[in-house]
Amino acid sequence: MKTPDKKSALSEIDGINQPDTLSIHAVQQIQKLRKKQPSAKELIDGILKHDKVALSRAITLVESTNPEHLSKANEVINGVLPNANKSVRIGITGVPGVGKSTFIEAFGKHLTSLGKKVAVLAVDPSSTISHGSILGDKTRMEELVKDENAFIRPSASGETLGGVARKTRESIILCEACGFDTIIIETVGVGQSETAVHSMVDFFLLLKISGAGDELQGIKRGIMEMADAIVINKADGDNINKAKLAKTEFNRALHLFPAKKSGWIPTASTCSSYTKEGINEVWNTISDYLELAKSNHYFQEKRKDQNQFWMMETINEQLKSNFYNHPEIIELIEQNKKAVQNDEMSPFAAAVSLLEKYFK
Amino acid sequence: MKTPDKKSALSEIDGINQPDTLSIHAVQQIQKLRKKQPSAKELIDGILKHDKVALSRAITLVESTNPEHLSKANEVINGVLPNANKSVRIGITGVPGVGKSTFIEAFGKHLTSLGKKVAVLAVDPSSTISHGSILGDKTRMEELVKDENAFIRPSASGETLGGVARKTRESIILCEACGFDTIIIETVGVGQSETAVHSMVDFFLLLKISGAGDELQGIKRGIMEMADAIVINKADGDNINKAKLAKTEFNRALHLFPAKKSGWIPTASTCSSYTKEGINEVWNTISDYLELAKSNHYFQEKRKDQNQFWMMETINEQLKSNFYNHPEIIELIEQNKKAVQNDEMSPFAAAVSLLEKYFK
Repeated sequence: MKTPDKKSALSEIDGINQPDTLSIHAVQQIQKLRKKQPSAKELIDGILKHDKVALSRAITLVESTNPEHLSKANEVINGVLPNANKSVRIGITGVPGVGKSTFIEAFGKHLTSLGKKVAVLAVDPSSTISHGSILGDKTRMEELVKDENAFIRPSASGETLGGVARKTRESIILCEACGFDTIIIETVGVGQSETAVHSMVDFFLLLKISGAGDELQGIKRGIMEMADAIVINKADGDNINKAKLAKTEFNRALHLFPAKKSGWIPTASTCSSYTKEGINEVWNTISDYLELAKSNHYFQEKRKDQNQFWMMETINEQLKSNFYNHPEIIELIEQNKKAVQNDEMSPFAAAVSLLEKYFK
Repeated sequence: MKTPDKKSALSEIDGINQPDTLSIHAVQQIQKLRKKQPSAKELIDGILKHDKVALSRAITLVESTNPEHLSKANEVINGVLPNANKSVRIGITGVPGVGKSTFIEAFGKHLTSLGKKVAVLAVDPSSTISHGSILGDKTRMEELVKDENAFIRPSASGETLGGVARKTRESIILCEACGFDTIIIETVGVGQSETAVHSMVDFFLLLKISGAGDELQGIKRGIMEMADAIVINKADGDNINKAKLAKTEFNRALHLFPAKKSGWIPTASTCSSYTKEGINEVWNTISDYLELAKSNHYFQEKRKDQNQFWMMETINEQLKSNFYNHPEIIELIEQNKKAVQNDEMSPFAAAVSLLEKYFK
């Protein structure tokens, strides 16, 4: 309803008054309930009872920067820890455009149809900058998000990859304790984040598409050698033959790679998230891997190594953060960087001069 | 000469007396000279005059753990820095048995025959454990070691890869200032050291042999994608056909890798360090690379990035070393590691408890 006397393109509508029948007492009760934060014990109990609301709240604590929240998050994590770890953790990477979301939707639905409980998390530090997230647009996983046996959580935000990775890793534990037996960690194959994801999963899957030519796919070097399987997505319609050719080429290349410690030989396959062709084969491949890696104890050893790695990683990350955020270092580091770039100072001498300031 | 009266399997021979003609005065003079350490300035002058003795002494300072030596080393490095950097730095990796030493000998001799001055250094932290070194056995480079235009220095020793790498990197600067225009850094392709070497060279060469099957060659994953060239060594005698086949396979695989930022497309070739066949082609390939990378400024940018990387790396290394050598941390870290392994503590909580102790 336009108010013509104002001569403005902006319109205004009348507000709605509080209905007289609303009970003030009831409002206060609701507000009180809303404010009440569940205790660590309540969250632990909720998670162990497979309550998704408790899980979401605990993840929010893990993602918080408030030190009080963090100490509570630690309490929850240590409380549920004995009930975690009973899952398979699958890392999925691939550059934007490769169809990660539709693949995860199709793959996730296949898994829940097999009776599995699927949690989808993400490591995407770039989402901090864009204030978006690769999983933020949940509508791209319309089916999965409605599935009772699925839990989807967008990437945590954080200043550093280390921070984001830490949060995702803690979230894995919470999801597992909440009864999720298949954890999918998504990442974009363009930064350092794949290495982080690789060190928190049991199986690492690289998603590709045919035809785009690797030079256009922009995936980081080294990722291909990390993969336990390469899946060529979008093998449908006119694309089928090109995808099959790509599969043959990748299989030929993969056998040139050094053998994996797990004894597993990575393979390439094709699939279509649209026709669902090949989706079940991806899960069969992962099952084969699990059978092998559990029987030769690689699976258990890798998890132990990963735990230790993350303990060390957290320490190293914190030591660096403390140094680089030190007021005196912030003041001096740029001029030392410049001196090094201009060959006026050796990198080592530049480092030593900063370290002396810091430890003094 | 056995002394039969002692009834022992041990024999004893008569000692040699100090010849009476030896002048005590002369001995004292010699001892005084030996003790005299050249000053930083003397070393700088020597290096800039292309004196190999001064170079060796400066490298010894760089490798010392004595803080006084280190500060003198820094003085020397900063003093020669404006005269360094005019070289090509080539990293060579490949697992033991691939013929690295004989390749470097043949390749180095080829380079000196072209009028180049070649320095060969190594990064091999494992040599600390074995108390040996991949370059320790200099007899394996008999020809090159006698060459006036070559300088060979075994791997520095050190507790950590970071330490060894830092020493090698400083040695590169000293060698360059001493007039060496081609620096070869050797490493064994089995640890983390290739990544370190990769970040200090302009060109990274992976040496392979055919027939052994990659699973036997034990090279670390990811190395193949780092390589600017793959050279299949020992392409002689009965091996020639197998080597050619391997070359074709690697070339096919290499084109599946994502493109390099340098715009360079890595290739595979064959060579024989024995018949010298293919050795000159290796240098031609490197020259082609240099032409490309210098014309598109990738070469210069990469060196700047590497300088900055090493400044940061030195800082991070030192921060870690300070933490992990802290008496209280040494005492506690093992029990936290165990708690993490047994899932009694999350990796993050275990890290936080140690960090709190350290920063307190």
